[in-house]
Amino acid sequence: MRIITFLSDFGLKDGYVGSVKGSILSINPSVKIVDISHEISPFDIRTGAYSILTYYNYFPKNTIHLAVVDPGVGSQRLPVIVKTANYYFVGPDNGLFSYIIQNEGYSAYAIQTKYLQQIKGIDFPVSHTFHGRDIFAPVAALLSKNIPLMQMADNITRNLESVPDLLEITDNRIITGVLTVDRFGNIITELRINTLDRLLKAEIDQVRFKDHIFRKLNDTYSAAQTGKPLVLWSSSGFLEIAVNQGRADEYFNLDRTRDKVEILLK
Amino acid sequence: MRIITFLSDFGLKDGYVGSVKGSILSINPSVKIVDISHEISPFDIRTGAYSILTYYNYFPKNTIHLAVVDPGVGSQRLPVIVKTANYYFVGPDNGLFSYIIQNEGYSAYAIQTKYLQQIKGIDFPVSHTFHGRDIFAPVAALLSKNIPLMQMADNITRNLESVPDLLEITDNRIITGVLTVDRFGNIITELRINTLDRLLKAEIDQVRFKDHIFRKLNDTYSAAQTGKPLVLWSSSGFLEIAVNQGRADEYFNLDRTRDKVEILLK
Amino acid sequence: MRIITFLSDFGLKDGYVGSVKGSILSINPSVKIVDISHEISPFDIRTGAYSILTYYNYFPKNTIHLAVVDPGVGSQRLPVIVKTANYYFVGPDNGLFSYIIQNEGYSAYAIQTKYLQQIKGIDFPVSHTFHGRDIFAPVAALLSKNIPLMQMADNITRNLESVPDLLEITDNRIITGVLTVDRFGNIITELRINTLDRLLKAEIDQVRFKDHIFRKLNDTYSAAQTGKPLVLWSSSGFLEIAVNQGRADEYFNLDRTRDKVEILLK
Repeated sequence: MRIITFLSDFGLKDGYVGSVKGSILSINPSVKIVDISHEISPFDIRTGAYSILTYYNYFPKNTIHLAVVDPGVGSQRLPVIVKTANYYFVGPDNGLFSYIIQNEGYSAYAIQTKYLQQIKGIDFPVSHTFHGRDIFAPVAALLSKNIPLMQMADNITRNLESVPDLLEITDNRIITGVLTVDRFGNIITELRINTLDRLLKAEIDQVRFKDHIFRKLNDTYSAAQTGKPLVLWSSSGFLEIAVNQGRADEYFNLDRTRDKVEILLK
Repeated sequence: MRIITFLSDFGLKDGYVGSVKGSILSINPSVKIVDISHEISPFDIRTGAYSILTYYNYFPKNTIHLAVVDPGVGSQRLPVIVKTANYYFVGPDNGLFSYIIQNEGYSAYAIQTKYLQQIKGIDFPVSHTFHGRDIFAPVAALLSKNIPLMQMADNITRNLESVPDLLEITDNRIITGVLTVDRFGNIITELRINTLDRLLKAEIDQVRFKDHIFRKLNDTYSAAQTGKPLVLWSSSGFLEIAVNQGRADEYFNLDRTRDKVEILLK
Repeated sequence: MRIITFLSDFGLKDGYVGSVKGSILSINPSVKIVDISHEISPFDIRTGAYSILTYYNYFPKNTIHLAVVDPGVGSQRLPVIVKTANYYFVGPDNGLFSYIIQNEGYSAYAIQTKYLQQIKGIDFPVSHTFHGRDIFAPVAALLSKNIPLMQMADNITRNLESVPDLLEITDNRIITGVLTVDRFGNIITELRINTLDRLLKAEIDQVRFKDHIFRKLNDTYSAAQTGKPLVLWSSSGFLEIAVNQGRADEYFNLDRTRDKVEILLK
């Protein structure tokens, strides 16, 4: 039983998501398609990249992660397959896999339409505007049928694209921008517990955000009083500013693109 | 073929829903996960409770209903399994199962993390902030693999939590608050046809809402003129105020927390 | 492995979608239900009709397409099954299948509740307000179990309902209204490439919209400068006005019901 997860910014008011699923099931009717989200804001590659990180390694080995947030469809950006120890990722090379390739070893492959068109029993009429349906979906479906990757793509030796880094690390201070704001208004920063522990071998002394100083991190939202802010490691290991049973974005009147969080290290 | 339904307030703009699904499929890759809704308003336990009632008994016997609307995650509220004649329910004990336990006989069990950690072949690193992914999902998955409930939980003898009752019943009059407003603007009250028929053995004489008096109930929306209001039993058996091809919430300028519906009995 | 796709305007904040899925799985627990969209605007039959067209023929042969946008539920509109060479469609006869029946040959059948009630082993308590759950879902499920169509429905000889045509075609000029606006703000017109090629055997000279004249069609969004408008054939073959990495609806300050697009032919 193979699994294809599916993340996109297609929204759910059109038939786009449906046509991608149809395209997959026409090639492999027995694959299990798992919807992750189709509500990534249009073209918000960074939030897409973050989302992938929050779910990918909860899935069984050999799961194929299809992810399409693709403002540059039809331009020169490459359609790619990224292979890690346990998973395949299929989507555009535009930074969407930034946090995955920071996380672990990988190899990358550029999908070649001309190879796809040589695979027997499948038509590949490629539109210029909808690679999700016409390239990425069939590639994910073919991988789920154990078609060897090299029949679809060529190895890439250069680095994949990454979203610009939001972290500035100095001696005993880290400045980070806001990575994303989740459904509950929690402010997710780009500082990861891994970065702190493994790379910096540091501990946090205090966190400063706007006029607020947090002198310790908490474990649960309910450690703060109702309506009061706290800092904690998010369930996916990013430093997060939250408000117990409230919205941190509103509490702090967040300017998502300008506001910075300052972390002082011990 | 076992089925797990999945309702939450996680929204669809983050990877939360995805990680819960991954957590389930890692334990039982062949289970069928059925999305119900992830758009319950954050922390709106009552609407969650109502929604469960509208779908749970349309599913095949032995379906596992996973439901997570959990403002108190990490606090003292219990993670529970509720078992009825035909179904299992997995989620927090915070009122989310209020209408189910009004509806039929049940037994309840408190999930014990320490038991879960003794089950072979599965890791249970429990985060403090995301029990949906780390406790409820694995429990639902283990139930779908026929792991006995008592290997995961202890019987609870006290009553489960309930949301506060919105009904005031006097001799020949019922006052009810607004339970929820659905997608189409229909106003759902907390009066159920079962309550009226079985408990009260009464019939409705008239329904009053704001300056409007409804002297009879209708069977279909189209019984009223286009744009005009009517009262009917909703498809799930709750008293509902609707507007034919319009929105009752806008028509009546609804104040959802304050407005009351008055029902006079024959 | 049979597939039922499911499109509706039920939204995802209630349990409606869930109860439809339960109703299907109670009859056929092994069918694969594929969510298309439940975010069609309430009662927006035309957008529903367009959406169906964008996905239906990407699915494997024999897929059953369940589609419910049903403002007239409980009124005289017929519940129908539409059969084309490769697919079944189940839903209300209110124009929702307009673009399908323009597209290809079909036969149509009126669902008869009294026939359904004679099918062994299944209960059919039909609500007056929720045919999606009580009629369309069971019919789709029964089709997926290969119950012959004629045990559920009678042949219809009259034409099915269609949404009003938005196209005015004169000698060398086509005027079209706006069919829908997609998630990305792209303006979809009702002119199809098939209509132009096959019926009119014409080519486009220029497209006029508001104070803008487009002297050629492009192949990809990125053919225009970032933030600039262009005209292209959409991925489902409709004439579309778009803005590269922007929203055409905002760029043109679109009045969706009044604005017209003018196409001059060579």
